[in-house]
Amino acid sequence: MAAPRRKALVAHRRATRAKVPTLPPALAAAVRAHVREEVARALAADRRSRVTRGANRATIIVFSGDLDRVMSALILANGAAAVGMEVSLFFTFWGLGALRRGTIVAGDGALSRAFTALTPSGLSRLGVSRLNFGGVGAKLLRTMMKQKGVASPEELLALARESGVRLVACTTSMDVMGLSPKDLVPDIEIGGVATYLGDAADSRITLFI
Amino acid sequence: MAAPRRKALVAHRRATRAKVPTLPPALAAAVRAHVREEVARALAADRRSRVTRGANRATIIVFSGDLDRVMSALILANGAAAVGMEVSLFFTFWGLGALRRGTIVAGDGALSRAFTALTPSGLSRLGVSRLNFGGVGAKLLRTMMKQKGVASPEELLALARESGVRLVACTTSMDVMGLSPKDLVPDIEIGGVATYLGDAADSRITLFI
Amino acid sequence: MAAPRRKALVAHRRATRAKVPTLPPALAAAVRAHVREEVARALAADRRSRVTRGANRATIIVFSGDLDRVMSALILANGAAAVGMEVSLFFTFWGLGALRRGTIVAGDGALSRAFTALTPSGLSRLGVSRLNFGGVGAKLLRTMMKQKGVASPEELLALARESGVRLVACTTSMDVMGLSPKDLVPDIEIGGVATYLGDAADSRITLFI
Repeated sequence: MAAPRRKALVAHRRATRAKVPTLPPALAAAVRAHVREEVARALAADRRSRVTRGANRATIIVFSGDLDRVMSALILANGAAAVGMEVSLFFTFWGLGALRRGTIVAGDGALSRAFTALTPSGLSRLGVSRLNFGGVGAKLLRTMMKQKGVASPEELLALARESGVRLVACTTSMDVMGLSPKDLVPDIEIGGVATYLGDAADSRITLFI
Repeated sequence: MAAPRRKALVAHRRATRAKVPTLPPALAAAVRAHVREEVARALAADRRSRVTRGANRATIIVFSGDLDRVMSALILANGAAAVGMEVSLFFTFWGLGALRRGTIVAGDGALSRAFTALTPSGLSRLGVSRLNFGGVGAKLLRTMMKQKGVASPEELLALARESGVRLVACTTSMDVMGLSPKDLVPDIEIGGVATYLGDAADSRITLFI
Repeated sequence: MAAPRRKALVAHRRATRAKVPTLPPALAAAVRAHVREEVARALAADRRSRVTRGANRATIIVFSGDLDRVMSALILANGAAAVGMEVSLFFTFWGLGALRRGTIVAGDGALSRAFTALTPSGLSRLGVSRLNFGGVGAKLLRTMMKQKGVASPEELLALARESGVRLVACTTSMDVMGLSPKDLVPDIEIGGVATYLGDAADSRITLFI
């Protein structure tokens, strides 16, 4: 027994002196075994927290005001919420049309009043990106979806709200278009690029639609 | 020697009693040095596993049916596969046109037959998003690409298959358009939003094209 | 005191022999407490490094040549740079129009000369994706933005440069269109898919605009 103890003491003394301390080999091995176990536990917890909390997010910019693209965004958002992800939809530019509450003319000046009058005011007035033919395409798409039992855009938006999807309207776009919160459907958050970046930097899925 | 040993014993006794145990300082320093080494090793392995296994994936939604955008998706997919990433392409909505097998009219009802007749059936019939002029733009683009030795869209799709890129057609879109697997080129997977989310949540690159 | 010491020695002896070494319980508890602290510190540092160095990046493909979309890309890029992210903008296809230096006709062959003549040469000539009416829409948008004190597209691009946003023009697209670096505004990097993938695989935010 004496030998290992003496060695341990020598090592201990060296450790007290030396810059990088050392342990007697057996003790070091024991320590390392404990460390490995603790580290594995900590890493697993870290991974779990990344998956289930912060980083389990999808953040989608809805830039387009086309019915087909807005629907795609809503279907993805509801799907992600259904599997337990946190979801944020940022409506910007033409995408704001999907959130307008139906008033044909809105805005705070001549230009924005002209602009809003020329752009769709609400989900029900969005056209499709192809074959729209003045709204016929959008009607055709809605009919085909209804025949196949797919939820309507309005139902998809309602579902997104119920599922806790964060709906944010872009401050800058609203400002440029002269829109105020009262021009949008109720219960929409207002946020800027910083709000978007906060959610996006924490997301597994980031899309621009 | 006596002093440090007595201290160590006192510390040890305290450790056996105390809720948060302590080590004699030199031993603690030695332990920490070992810990740091083990932790660094574990973190490096964790990072490597994140890079080389699960998270080394690119998942791209091909929503657009424009030749230029579909080609961009294929070029990115092949590039990512070439550097060793796992790649998934999800074709949805107009993007399905790139996978149709050339039958002009398809679908299971009057509406979907009209719809499919009005949309491109296959890569060779896709137009470009700008300057298309009834297909002239697409031909121009193809000629310019050939002159510069860039692979054709058909070659890019074949390469993607060979490189093991996962090609998935969106169930919901197929259903809405009345398309069945026999309307698509062979060896295309069929999958829904859940399939997409499974791959996307595990990806470093997520795009909507 | 004798008992714990003897136990410790027995444990120590066992540890020297056994494959998986063990520590006396109190020592093990002390080691684990130190380990937990070190691991927490290492994981926090690892997270910080992921956030502030490598993985704190946003990589955006600017495929579109529409003023509204290019502006969206620039606003996101500047916003991300402002909160300390590293940002890369990859201009490809129609997006290259935003970087052209104003020469109406460019290119190295009849086709590319025709093509470049038909596409916008520079930020100031980009149209908007909707309601453009031969450029009226772009002018309207610029006026509305000026009225609201939003930076012009030119100012946004200059700011991006100053903020260290990486501006890369896609080699393949330039080649296909017959554009050379002298057809672009100064100080633009030239890079291919590999350059993009290098930045994108290391990014928290990846977008295709």
